[in-house]
Amino acid sequence: MTESDLKQKILLFFRKNKEQYVSGEDISRSLEVSRAYVWKYMSKLRDDGYAIDAVPRLGYKIRSVPDKLFGYEIKNGLKTRVIGKKEIYHYEAIDSTNNRAYELAEELAPEGTIVVAESQTHGKGRIGRKWVSPKNGGIYMSLILRPDVETDEVPSVTLVAAVAIIRAIKDITGIDVRMKWPNDILCGKKKVCGILTEIKAQPDRVDFLILGAGINVNTPVGKLPAGSTSLKDETGYSINRAQLMRQILEELENNYKKFQKKGFTIVRSECKRLSSVLGKNVRIKAHHHIIEGKAIDIDKKGALIVWDGNCERRRVFSGDVSVVSQ
Amino acid sequence: MTESDLKQKILLFFRKNKEQYVSGEDISRSLEVSRAYVWKYMSKLRDDGYAIDAVPRLGYKIRSVPDKLFGYEIKNGLKTRVIGKKEIYHYEAIDSTNNRAYELAEELAPEGTIVVAESQTHGKGRIGRKWVSPKNGGIYMSLILRPDVETDEVPSVTLVAAVAIIRAIKDITGIDVRMKWPNDILCGKKKVCGILTEIKAQPDRVDFLILGAGINVNTPVGKLPAGSTSLKDETGYSINRAQLMRQILEELENNYKKFQKKGFTIVRSECKRLSSVLGKNVRIKAHHHIIEGKAIDIDKKGALIVWDGNCERRRVFSGDVSVVSQ
Repeated sequence: MTESDLKQKILLFFRKNKEQYVSGEDISRSLEVSRAYVWKYMSKLRDDGYAIDAVPRLGYKIRSVPDKLFGYEIKNGLKTRVIGKKEIYHYEAIDSTNNRAYELAEELAPEGTIVVAESQTHGKGRIGRKWVSPKNGGIYMSLILRPDVETDEVPSVTLVAAVAIIRAIKDITGIDVRMKWPNDILCGKKKVCGILTEIKAQPDRVDFLILGAGINVNTPVGKLPAGSTSLKDETGYSINRAQLMRQILEELENNYKKFQKKGFTIVRSECKRLSSVLGKNVRIKAHHHIIEGKAIDIDKKGALIVWDGNCERRRVFSGDVSVVSQ
Repeated sequence: MTESDLKQKILLFFRKNKEQYVSGEDISRSLEVSRAYVWKYMSKLRDDGYAIDAVPRLGYKIRSVPDKLFGYEIKNGLKTRVIGKKEIYHYEAIDSTNNRAYELAEELAPEGTIVVAESQTHGKGRIGRKWVSPKNGGIYMSLILRPDVETDEVPSVTLVAAVAIIRAIKDITGIDVRMKWPNDILCGKKKVCGILTEIKAQPDRVDFLILGAGINVNTPVGKLPAGSTSLKDETGYSINRAQLMRQILEELENNYKKFQKKGFTIVRSECKRLSSVLGKNVRIKAHHHIIEGKAIDIDKKGALIVWDGNCERRRVFSGDVSVVSQ
């Protein structure tokens, strides 16, 4: 049993005995570890920020839980089979969760492995941009996937993830967030989440895919770039990040499984319904050119179809979309 | 001056004084290094396999050069500006030159860096296959490129490289080799070279690209899989591998520069002319499906266009092509 596993079990035991004191002896017996170990782990949990009361003859009781995305907190009650069920690497601060997950994937970490951080010093956005990642409030996570897809299906994996995150945010907060193709999630016109997908690939096979997401959960808006908002700012209350993250992982696994079995088609109609740009006149700054027209469809590979109002329909795989006045 | 640089200079000095003995003093004066250094480097070169005669009062003379792809051999007389002008990492045996180059690229090795080996223990082919890489005879090389392209342009980079390698092989050996789309080079119906492109990428930007090539140069055919041949077997004589490699690097740089300025279009017609499958009825095993029809075009992104004889034209990005009887 790893340290993280044991912490998870102890916390689970507390949760089952909600509001009551539990004795060290009960924990020791239930988890089949020595009393000395229980004592040691209470101390470790306190170091992690858990406030644990100890009363002679009554035992231990958790008074408060730290607002942290520890793997053993996220795993508690997580109803998935793969995603989040492997190692969850937690960092107070890291350069970029995507970079760390990429390294781990190179070292053959299995699908479902997660890197999560309380803050990022060099959070990455698309095409070399930054994702501002202040501590205490955001979810900055990267998930290792090893899908059996070709390179041109990668944009659709991003969309599959976007739909899952949108669902989870709606479930937990009730906010009507929308997807701004290809990789942002908006609340009204403001950015609340960005997704960054990175791959190692050969032309006809993806070796692995890193799905990174930065979500402004309880982040004070003053710490975010202009044009951004946070879920707390929109709802007016703090959101339990571990709970939101569990919901995201469950929706992700659900969507990803469907995608693996049936392809992008299965998520496509929901993806279109959630899109904030379909039906609008858009201007897209793609890699080396600008495309203007009406966004009329998201095709079966996740490309945006833009119609120039005349004869031409263009398939766009990625780019910066702005909606222009009709 | 690195060890490799100094070796290169000493060998260049010998070459300029062809057939004559050169004194240690002349070398020392010309290269501005001490006599002790010259002596030390003669010894190092002998360790590398150079047969160097030393005659009192006459000096040194190179009697024979080892058949090795040392960086300082390849660089001697190499007329490029970038490709092969950075570090050339030479290995007697390595698991895979592509893997090593990928690592180096992650560590920010610049465009033009090369890994070359005399043999590979786990030479890589497409989609997890092996590239048989016996010692003494092949060229196994991987080149780091950092092109400013989108992911869907990667197949065209492979074709740009294939055209360059074909030209170099023709120049040096006179053999009429052809390109078997997407990544093999054939002599008749037999494989003489395979190219493996691997990338690190985001959906709309390639971070770096590893261009790997395995070429059966002087390899005894008995050591190769069925359906393969070597340049030596086709011509009847041994080919100077360092010279062939220089030619390849020069053609590569030439083609790659054109590609960067003008895109794939500039190489496309030559690519089509060199293709062994265009105009033929083909059966392609792509990722999850089989495509049958007539290969009628290579489009502006490097995809193969297959016509089903009726209404449908399909774009294929990669796969195993076999020519079926007409």
